Parts: sequence; C-alpha cells; structure tokens
Amino acid sequence: MPWLHHMRWPEVEKYLQSRQLILIPVGSTEQHGRHAPLGTDSFIAIRLAEDASRETGALVAPPLFLGWSPHHMVLPGTISIDAEVLSNLVFLEIESLAHHGFARCAIVNGHRITNLSWLQIAAQRAQSELDVELALFDPAYMSREIVAELGFGPFGHAEEIETSHMLHIHPELVNLEEAVDGSYGDRPLYDIDPRSTKDTLAYLPSRLSEMQVLASKTGGSSGHPTRARADLGRQLHEHLVRRLIQVTRQLEGLE
Amino acid sequence: MPWLHHMRWPEVEKYLQSRQLILIPVGSTEQHGRHAPLGTDSFIAIRLAEDASRETGALVAPPLFLGWSPHHMVLPGTISIDAEVLSNLVFLEIESLAHHGFARCAIVNGHRITNLSWLQIAAQRAQSELDVELALFDPAYMSREIVAELGFGPFGHAEEIETSHMLHIHPELVNLEEAVDGSYGDRPLYDIDPRSTKDTLAYLPSRLSEMQVLASKTGGSSGHPTRARADLGRQLHEHLVRRLIQVTRQLEGLE
Amino acid sequence: MPWLHHMRWPEVEKYLQSRQLILIPVGSTEQHGRHAPLGTDSFIAIRLAEDASRETGALVAPPLFLGWSPHHMVLPGTISIDAEVLSNLVFLEIESLAHHGFARCAIVNGHRITNLSWLQIAAQRAQSELDVELALFDPAYMSREIVAELGFGPFGHAEEIETSHMLHIHPELVNLEEAVDGSYGDRPLYDIDPRSTKDTLAYLPSRLSEMQVLASKTGGSSGHPTRARADLGRQLHEHLVRRLIQVTRQLEGLE
Amino acid sequence: MPWLHHMRWPEVEKYLQSRQLILIPVGSTEQHGRHAPLGTDSFIAIRLAEDASRETGALVAPPLFLGWSPHHMVLPGTISIDAEVLSNLVFLEIESLAHHGFARCAIVNGHRITNLSWLQIAAQRAQSELDVELALFDPAYMSREIVAELGFGPFGHAEEIETSHMLHIHPELVNLEEAVDGSYGDRPLYDIDPRSTKDTLAYLPSRLSEMQVLASKTGGSSGHPTRARADLGRQLHEHLVRRLIQVTRQLEGLE
Amino acid sequence: MPWLHHMRWPEVEKYLQSRQLILIPVGSTEQHGRHAPLGTDSFIAIRLAEDASRETGALVAPPLFLGWSPHHMVLPGTISIDAEVLSNLVFLEIESLAHHGFARCAIVNGHRITNLSWLQIAAQRAQSELDVELALFDPAYMSREIVAELGFGPFGHAEEIETSHMLHIHPELVNLEEAVDGSYGDRPLYDIDPRSTKDTLAYLPSRLSEMQVLASKTGGSSGHPTRARADLGRQLHEHLVRRLIQVTRQLEGLE
Amino acid sequence: MPWLHHMRWPEVEKYLQSRQLILIPVGSTEQHGRHAPLGTDSFIAIRLAEDASRETGALVAPPLFLGWSPHHMVLPGTISIDAEVLSNLVFLEIESLAHHGFARCAIVNGHRITNLSWLQIAAQRAQSELDVELALFDPAYMSREIVAELGFGPFGHAEEIETSHMLHIHPELVNLEEAVDGSYGDRPLYDIDPRSTKDTLAYLPSRLSEMQVLASKTGGSSGHPTRARADLGRQLHEHLVRRLIQVTRQLEGLE
Repeated sequence: MPWLHHMRWPEVEKYLQSRQLILIPVGSTEQHGRHAPLGTDSFIAIRLAEDASRETGALVAPPLFLGWSPHHMVLPGTISIDAEVLSNLVFLEIESLAHHGFARCAIVNGHRITNLSWLQIAAQRAQSELDVELALFDPAYMSREIVAELGFGPFGHAEEIETSHMLHIHPELVNLEEAVDGSYGDRPLYDIDPRSTKDTLAYLPSRLSEMQVLASKTGGSSGHPTRARADLGRQLHEHLVRRLIQVTRQLEGLE
Repeated sequence: MPWLHHMRWPEVEKYLQSRQLILIPVGSTEQHGRHAPLGTDSFIAIRLAEDASRETGALVAPPLFLGWSPHHMVLPGTISIDAEVLSNLVFLEIESLAHHGFARCAIVNGHRITNLSWLQIAAQRAQSELDVELALFDPAYMSREIVAELGFGPFGHAEEIETSHMLHIHPELVNLEEAVDGSYGDRPLYDIDPRSTKDTLAYLPSRLSEMQVLASKTGGSSGHPTRARADLGRQLHEHLVRRLIQVTRQLEGLE
Repeated sequence: MPWLHHMRWPEVEKYLQSRQLILIPVGSTEQHGRHAPLGTDSFIAIRLAEDASRETGALVAPPLFLGWSPHHMVLPGTISIDAEVLSNLVFLEIESLAHHGFARCAIVNGHRITNLSWLQIAAQRAQSELDVELALFDPAYMSREIVAELGFGPFGHAEEIETSHMLHIHPELVNLEEAVDGSYGDRPLYDIDPRSTKDTLAYLPSRLSEMQVLASKTGGSSGHPTRARADLGRQLHEHLVRRLIQVTRQLEGLE
Repeated sequence: MPWLHHMRWPEVEKYLQSRQLILIPVGSTEQHGRHAPLGTDSFIAIRLAEDASRETGALVAPPLFLGWSPHHMVLPGTISIDAEVLSNLVFLEIESLAHHGFARCAIVNGHRITNLSWLQIAAQRAQSELDVELALFDPAYMSREIVAELGFGPFGHAEEIETSHMLHIHPELVNLEEAVDGSYGDRPLYDIDPRSTKDTLAYLPSRLSEMQVLASKTGGSSGHPTRARADLGRQLHEHLVRRLIQVTRQLEGLE
Repeated sequence: MPWLHHMRWPEVEKYLQSRQLILIPVGSTEQHGRHAPLGTDSFIAIRLAEDASRETGALVAPPLFLGWSPHHMVLPGTISIDAEVLSNLVFLEIESLAHHGFARCAIVNGHRITNLSWLQIAAQRAQSELDVELALFDPAYMSREIVAELGFGPFGHAEEIETSHMLHIHPELVNLEEAVDGSYGDRPLYDIDPRSTKDTLAYLPSRLSEMQVLASKTGGSSGHPTRARADLGRQLHEHLVRRLIQVTRQLEGLE
Repeated sequence: MPWLHHMRWPEVEKYLQSRQLILIPVGSTEQHGRHAPLGTDSFIAIRLAEDASRETGALVAPPLFLGWSPHHMVLPGTISIDAEVLSNLVFLEIESLAHHGFARCAIVNGHRITNLSWLQIAAQRAQSELDVELALFDPAYMSREIVAELGFGPFGHAEEIETSHMLHIHPELVNLEEAVDGSYGDRPLYDIDPRSTKDTLAYLPSRLSEMQVLASKTGGSSGHPTRARADLGRQLHEHLVRRLIQVTRQLEGLE
C-alpha cells in the first residue's frame, strides 16, 4: 500500500534508505454540478497518486480534502479555506517531510487552476527555504493531447472530462441522469482550457455573480457532462497515471 | 454513505432541510511505536465518525489527517503542523459549513490531548463568531469507565488501549510482533489518563529530550502494547460509538 | 519581594547563578457576577504566585491581567483578547526569559479552562522551540480533593469556591450581599468540574446565547456564591499554595 | 497624464462619474543578466499601462516595483518580498480603490509567472470579498503569436524577447555588449513558454542551486539576449499595448 | 479605587451611565541600569494613571507590564514582545472596552519612544475602525518645561529624571549607590530629548552593538542618575499628573 | 542615475565594493486638498532622495507610493494600506538589501507622522535582527528652522509648506486656483508642528469624523495653501537636501 499513514515508522525509515520521493494529493470539497460528488477533485488526486505509486512503489502522503473555492460557495456542501492558510499548511507539511529526508515531492492537484496559485507559493517557498525538489502535477494540462484525441469539448467545471474520469474511478458516486449541459460565458482573451490559444495562465475563476447564474442554469456545471463515458474516463486516467509516473521519475533523476 | 464529499450538492441540500448536524473527524500523522501505523489517530477518528453516522444518518465532513505533533518529530514519518494554522483551518471549515446551514458540529478528535488545545480555540471562536453549537469528542475521556472494566493499564502513547482499538478496526496495519512495552516517566501531579486523580487538564506533552529517550527505549510507545487484543478493541470501539451517538443526539436536542 | 519587575538587573543576574525558575501569573478581566470583581482570576493567580514564591524564593514575572473571554462579553467591563495574540505574547515572554537563562517556567493560571487552550499552545511551542521545561498550574484541578473536603458544590463561575477564595485574599473587593445563586444548565457528558466523572477535558465554555440567559438570571455567576466563607477560602488558598510549591519543586528537580 | 498619483482628488472624482476602470502595474526589482536593469519587469509593466491608458484615457494606479523573487537572490540588487505580504498589499490597494468606486481593475504584471501566484490570490479574494471585476494581464501569454512571428526563441529570463522590449522602451538602461547567451536546462514536461505544448501552468521557477549555476554561466540570463533588436521590441510592445487595450475594453463591457 | 479590575460589573455599568473615559497604563519590563528596577516604566505609567484618576474619578484599565525592548535584551531580566503582537493586544483591548461604551481612552505610556510606534498604530486603528476618541500620553514630552526648570540634564535611559521619579514613587526599589553616570554617544541630528532642537520624532533606539557598549560602561543607564533626588521627582510627578488630568479633561470635552 | 532599479547587477556589485549605503523613499497616495496631487508625499520623498544622491553618488531603492492613510479615505483616490503589511514589506526589503551587503539605510519619508509609526517598527526590527544601521529622515522635523525663516505658518496638511515644495518640484501637478485656506481645530497639548512646544511625538492623526468636517470645509487641506510660492519651495527643498546629505554622511561615518 503506498500511503504514508498506513505505514509504521520503521517502514518509512527503511523506505528513506533508498528513496526520497513522496507524492502529496490535494483536492477540494466543492459542488460539481447535480451529477458529480463534492469530493470529485479529491478523488481524482487520490486515485492518480495511488495508481502511479502502485507501479513505482513511491510513498503517498495523506490526502488533503479541502481547497480554496470561494466562487463555489453558492451551492451547499462547498468548503472554502483561505489560500494563505492552505499555503502555510502544505508548506509546513513539506517542512516536516523534508526534516525526515523526503527531498523530492510531487504535489498531485485535483482542483485544477484554483489550487495552483497557493500551491505554487507553498512549492516555491519550499524550494527556497528547504533543500527540496518539487513538481506540481495538474491533470488539466497533463491531459491536453489525450483530451483532444478522446473527442472531449473544452475544459469547464464538472464537464464531460471530469465526469468521465469519475465514471471510471467512482461510478457509484455519479448520477448521470442529473447532469445538465451548459457553457461558461465565452471570454475572448482568457481560457481555462490548456488547449486554447488564449491566456490560460492569468485566467481567473468566475465571480460570485457569474457563479450564481451558472448555478441556476445548470446546477453548477459547464460543458457537456451528459456526454461523459466511463471508457473514455479510463483512457484519460491511464494517460494521466503515465504522465504522473514520468514526473516522479524525473524528480528522481531516472528520466 | 455518511461522507459529505461522497454526496452531490442536491443530496446535501435535501439533508439540510431536516437536519443541521455534521461530524468532523480530526486525526494526525505521527509515529505510534514500531507496531502501529502513523495514521492511527486518523483511523480512530474516521471509524468512530463513520460508525456513529451509519446508525444515526448524520453527515460526516472529509477527514483531516494532519495534527500538531512537535514532540513526535523525533521519529520518521511524523508530520507536525503549527497549532495556529490548524485552528484557522478548522474554524474556516466550520464557517463554510455554517454558511450552508450546518449549525451543529461534533468534532471527533483521534489525537487526544495534543489536538485539543487548538481545537478548543477553533470551537470557541466558532461558538462566539458564528451561530453554531459545537461539541468536542475525545476518545480518552469518553472511554474512562469502559477502559477500567476492560482491564487496561494507564493511557500513554500507542499503548494497549490504542493498539487494541487498531487491532479491531485495522488489524492489517498493526504488527504486534514489533510492539515494545515501556512506560512514561511518572509525573506526581499531572497525568494524561482521565481515570487518574492527578491534573489531566493542564498536562503537557513530553519535551523533545524526553521523547528521544522514549524513542530509543521503546520505539516511541509507552504502556503495554503487547497486551493489546482485538476483542477488547471491539468493546472499546462500540462503547465509544455509543458515546459519540449520545453527543450528537444531545447536539440535536434529542436527549 | 518575589517580583521580577521589582528587581534591578544585577539582582536577576545573581538569582540566575543558582536558579533557573520563574513563575508567570496569568489571569483575566471578566465579569464575576454582581458580587466579585472583574479581576478575580488575576488576583488569584497573583496571590498564589506571590505566596508560593515567598516560601521558596522563586522569582515571579509581572502578571498578565488579560485573558480570552468572548462568552463573558455579555456583561460590561469584560476584556477579551484573541487566543492567538495571547498565545504569541506568552510564547515571546518565555523566549525572552529563556534568553537570559530562565529554563524552568511555571505558568500560574487564574482563568481556569478558558485560558488553558492558548496557554497549552504557548507552553508546548516553548518546549519544542526553546530549551525550557514548563508546567501549567490550574487551580481548579489542583484543588479537587480539598474542594470536596470543604463541602463546596460543583465548579461553575464566580461560585462559592472562587468567591471564598476572594473573601480570603481580597475581602474588600467582594460584596456578598449582591451575590445571586443559580446554576448552569446540566450537560450530561461534559463538565467543568474536575471532580466529575464526565469529560472535563473537551468541555467548551458556554455560548453567547447561554451566557445571556445566565446574565439575566444571576448576573453572570453560577453555583452558590452566597455560601462563600473566608475561612474556607483560606484553607483552599493554603492548599493551592502547597500544590504550587510542589509543582515548582518538581520543575527544579527537588521532588 | 494617466497616473492616479499625478491627479488631484477632484479630478479623480470627475473621472469616476463616467468610468470605473483602473490599471495597476506590478513589476519586480531583480537581476536581469549582465545587460538589462534590475527594474526590467517594472519598466515593462509601467510602459504598457501608460501607453494603453494614453489611448483609452484609463487611470493608472502608482506602480509597485517589488515582487517575489527568492530564486534571484543569488545576484546582487534583487529584492524579494514574501508572497503573502505582496498579496495582502495588492488586495488592500484594490479595497481602497473599490471603496472610491473603481469597480474594474486590470493588473498589469511585468514579472511573468513568479508574480502570478500571489496576484491570483489577491485578485480572486477581491472578486469574492469586494464588488470588483478583475483581469490579470501577463505579457508572456499575451504575446505568444507575435513572438513566434518575430522569430524569437523560447521565453527564459532576460532573453531576446525581454531585452528587445527594453531596447525599445529604455535603450539607455541596456548594455547589450554585456549580454551572454545561454539556456535553461530543458524540462521534458514543464515549460515557462506559453507557445510550448508542455505544462506552463504548473511550471515552478528554478531552485536556488540551479540559479547559482545559471548565475555563474551567463550572469543570470537565459536564451539569446545578444539577438535582441529594438525594432522587434517596438513591434512586441505595440502588440501588447493593443492586447491590453482589448482587456480593458472587455472589462468595461465595450467589447 | 480607580482600577477597572477591582470593580464589580454593576459598578462599571453605573460609571458608564455618566462617563465614557478610561485610562490604559502601558509600561515595560526592561533593564534600567544597576540602580533602578526592571519595572520602572510600568511603575511610572501606573502611578500617573492612579494619581490622575484619584482626582478625577476616571476608571483605569489593568496595567500592561510588557513592552517592546529588543535593544535592552543585552541585560538580564528584560522581556521584549514583538511590536505587532503588542499593537494587536492593545487594539483588541480597546475594542472590548468600546463594545461596553468606553468611547474615550487615554493611553498612559511609561516606556517613552520605544512604545510609541506600536501604540500609535493601535490608537490610529482604533480611531478608524471603532467609534473611539484617543489620546497618547508620553511623560517625556509632557514634562519638557518642568524638566528644564528642575535643572535636569538631557533625557537618556534611567537617567536622573526617571530615577528621581522613581525615588519619589518607589524609593524602596531604587539603590542609588549602584548608579553609574555616563552618556549616550551624541547624534548631531537626532535626539530623544523633546527639549532638543534636533529631530525627536524620527529618533531610533540604539542598536544592539551600541547597547552592549553602554551595558559594559554604565550597566545600561545614561545621563547622571547619581544626581537624582526624591523631591525633584515629586515635583516632576505632580506636574505630570496635572498634565494627564488636562489630557483626560480634554478627551471628555471639559477643557 | 542614482536608482537601483535603473542599474544592472554588475553595477550594483561594483558600488558595493566601496559603499554600503542605500536610500529608500517612502510616500503615500492620499488626498492633498483640491490643489495638490494625490502623490504629493511620494514626489517629495523621491525628489529629496534623487537630489541628495545626485550629489553624493548614493544608490536609491525604488520608491514606495503607498502609505497608511485611513483618515484620508474620506476623499477619492486615497489608497490606505494596513500599517502591519507596510512594516513587513519594508522590513523584508531591508532584509534583501542587507543580504547583498547594504548595511546602511536611510529611509526618506514623505508622509510625515502617519508613516513614522510603522517605519520605526520596520527600522528597529532591522536594527535588532539584521546587521544594519538605519536612519529615518522626516522632512517636517528636518526643516523646522528654515520653515520659520521662510515665514511659513504651522504644519498642517497640504498647507503652504507642502504646496510650496510641490510648486518647486512639480508645478505642473499643482492647481493653486483650487486651493482653499482653513485650519485644523486647535489642540491645546498636542501638535503636528515640530516648532511647537506641545507634544509632537504622541500626536495622533485626526479621526474620520474630523476629517469629514475638514473635507467639506476646505477640500481636505489645512493651513494657508494659497500663500504657497515656488521660490520658497526651492529654498525649503535645498535645505532638506542638505539635511538629508548630512544624515547619509553620518550613516557612512563621514561626519
């Protein structure tokens, strides 16, 4: 089992004699439309970390189920923690791990762009203040080619991409009959989709007023979740696992 | 399934029409001797919340696997987060939940006294600043009579009580052959054990230098973990689940 | 005179040549019913420290008159400081003292459970980050046997125990004619009273709405302050002073 | 003149009667190789804001010359401010502006990816807590097509793109004779260049040890600064000014 | 008795029916040469507040014995708290007081310039965020004429002015035989002395290296403490009490 | 050119071989009456630093245009940043500079008393925690004699002194026809004017309610701005430049 918290400390000590790598899955608890569970982002981060580690034997730190989601507070169940608190939490977690000898960390983000800002601050602080090498793994970017091949439309929220992913890893938590298609308002210069030629780096999540419109129209999702299919989700997941393995192998200097 | 993050937001909305209760399990990732896993405190909090909720239908927020454990940093795998960061995190979590209408929260603590200080700050802040009613559930105190009946010795760290509990809920993660008996230095006026007539309230966790001695003597545990038994663990667990149900029923004004 | 701030630095330097002990009295400024002064908690902490030090020659740091009392803001005169600010303040105070060589600190708390959470954080931080040995002295716990012997009822707020204590140490500040008897609502599983078999560790102070009820019923006190007697207060005080001396002697390795 | 701090308050009051837009230029003070000035990022942000505003009449807030650059501390003159402090500063600035009625802010970033994380936090907080519409303008992304047309190589640090830009706007501060060509170590999966098909979103700045290598090889720059040309810089600048005008027109609902 | 913490809340309620004024004495615990006690600044603030209140009937909040004294850490017994923590503490204290109706506060500073910076921040925050009118009382400035008349030399640290003051209010804590005369290095443009024509506003306390020199030369004092006289101290004190009464009468709109 | 951000790092390296001095100009963006620009304080700090450095060859750090001005938020365009954020920002700036070898810093304040409190905290922290020698330059104090000679009335806000200064350094930004004369309410014991015999050190900026009165009477200025003259401003400026040169020469041990 790859999880750190499932191990006893002598097992960790033994692991550290040959390897310094650890994966840290970070998700969120936020509305994912009428059809997908609040923990969607967390489940994706957890399963990617688990499956990559199963193959490489890497250790995985316990998952973090909470992210920063102020714009999703419009629908019940969303939990939003301030970016500053989350950034300090993850920095202190890396500090503890580095103290024991974990010198290479891959942070597996399931919450896409909204977690990236504070994760980058935690990661860059760790790089500067501790003797640690870090990588940030984001599933949206790392699936940009396969997503095109699988015929998915643009990235949105709880759209066919994320929903297909969930149909593969947690079909019991998805109710596709509740899915409602819809679309974000088009922004001419910015886009959340890494396949777009627009600016994806400086994209900002929607404002509360826009989210309220979305909530009343589709129940919080965008894109075409009704087109989601478990087999496409499987291909997406396997692609992402391969990519994550590549990232961790590079961190370990094996590639 | 009782977990909030397993639900879709319309399910949460429906739940909130009749109930306002949520359980928040909080654990730690810290050394538990040579024989028990780093996540012991988290597993206990999680399982208590799950089993209590299964019976009462209460919702459970996603678990927090990280606690404050500076004194346990002497052994590998321990992750210690500053009390201030954790207290803010849990306060903000309650604030999000209260925003949606969860007005009664039971925090299920698996990390005993070391989590209690910052949890009390988060809980009392929530009571004063939000319109929320809170209870803090601590397994050590809530098992003081049954522990006596079951013939356990004093509370320590990863001792026969905690180890029996783990043998019941996660036997696959315990390696009893590695267990080493030992004891904390006796403190004439303070005690971690709620059955003691000493001051348990103002007890302070051991200092790093004491922990280093303990680490080299027993591998980090105290008491008599070798006496742990799954059947005693089952009785302990069932007692604690009953107690937790009592606490949540009181929060809901049913008792 | 035992007070640090009454001494000149060469006297402190001389003291440190043979001893490393200092006492830190911490109280509050909060309503104590119609009959007892706002500084009751502070006066108790101060007098305990003074009298213990008079006998042992230990130094006492200047008193802190402010605590965390959000629930007592319902009555005028109460000053409530955020737990985080107080915890940092006392940690920094210990850091300065440790810098000069005070390596053993006993924090004398007059504000019972409400100060304990943030004091524990300050104390455990000091234990982990500085080379200091600490003890937290709480008068409620440390008087549990004598309180029973003296025939007092349960611990509450400004009840006969605290009031008797004040009648002994500051009779001029108590107006017993104004005292009103009353009682907290009973909580089946939690209790503030260390003699109780309920959970005293995870007890939370009352919520503002409960405090408003108490304020209008009794003027903010609970229990039976009208039964308070100076002679019982004297016995209580002398017992606590003996206990505090024990605590400091243990810190100094003399017991 | 478009600068807020050059205006008297009655002029600001008049402006606010018809428009709610303000631009906020944010740069850095960090080493830009042997050939370009420490304020390169600031000069770019300032000039873009000035030139866009000259055409549209938009107001510009005073520039911020300090950014987060821990990795560039290896060379003298770099000033690095903690991300948390900068994020709070810019949030509070937007809060003051919003108080007066500026409800649409375009943050013009000259420091590329390293400023983006904390700027996104400030911007998303402002979107959630204030009634403000925000856009983040990043010159790297917004020049991706033109950069290809102009025949520039990949984005790096103080490379031919940035250097050409500076040769156009501040030739007197560039000493091209000092420029040294070089290259970052190639990262197979991540890239700072928005034209790349690699993950640009989760790219992390180099670690201190990598920066020290770069500093000793090229004096801190990467890419081919020796190929920089003022005329290409002019075309780049004019393209970016047009883009920024587009962004601000969209914020004002004009496009 | 003028002290808030000596009163019962009904007495405070009654006071607030006719007055809104409160005094807050703030001192320090820091070395004051070989001859004066560590609490000198606190004793001065306390006695000024007490004596002014005795005459006017104004209430006095409990004293704060801790200040910001990083430069005095060179001698044992000094306790230095970070300015930010102190500023938040006093702001929160004023917030509690304002909540009950104390709308006019005079902060009586005994620590001269070193407390003023953070007290000004607390005071100006209170003015802006709360409906409170504040005055900061500094004994150095408020005694500038009388000090000249009494023939005292320049202000320094634990010099004849402060020492005379202490000989009047706490002669039992001063040991004049230990006093050593000396002087600060002259600064051509800045001065701590309000009678000086140099810049007293932007004066900075000495650096640690300068303090170490002072400590070894005079034991931490400057000026001519050996010239201190109790009768001059009495005149100084009475002048300051009159001044403080003026300040509080103005706050109450009586002058 | 004296500006750090205009230099390339090898130029900074060379400078540091012979000198350790840097000037840091700090201003504000706040209303300065109907006649003077919002950036008045910033322009004054910038021009003083520039002109002093032109003569002595000292380096100047990039200017900070934002200060703490809660009381000036009553008029549009004012930007007020919390004192704590500003103090941390400037401390971190000095820390970066000290890292590279700048061991002598003169902070040139254009915002008079309102910036001084948080600048003193940043400066004293830097003195205690870093190996840096600091001076704070305040134009009000440093011009007290010349101001008398030039026949100016008392210091206020945007009065004839500041306005004359601006008429000399930035006449194009002043509209004297809009100037309105007026006066602050007289305070018997406190004064902002360093020529006054009142307490200038413990002076607090006006409260919001007072500022609203001022805003409606004069548009935010006090004193007699209509008497401002460019030639007097020139004499004032030249005097201040000489004073600032004195301060920096002393920091460098040349005087």
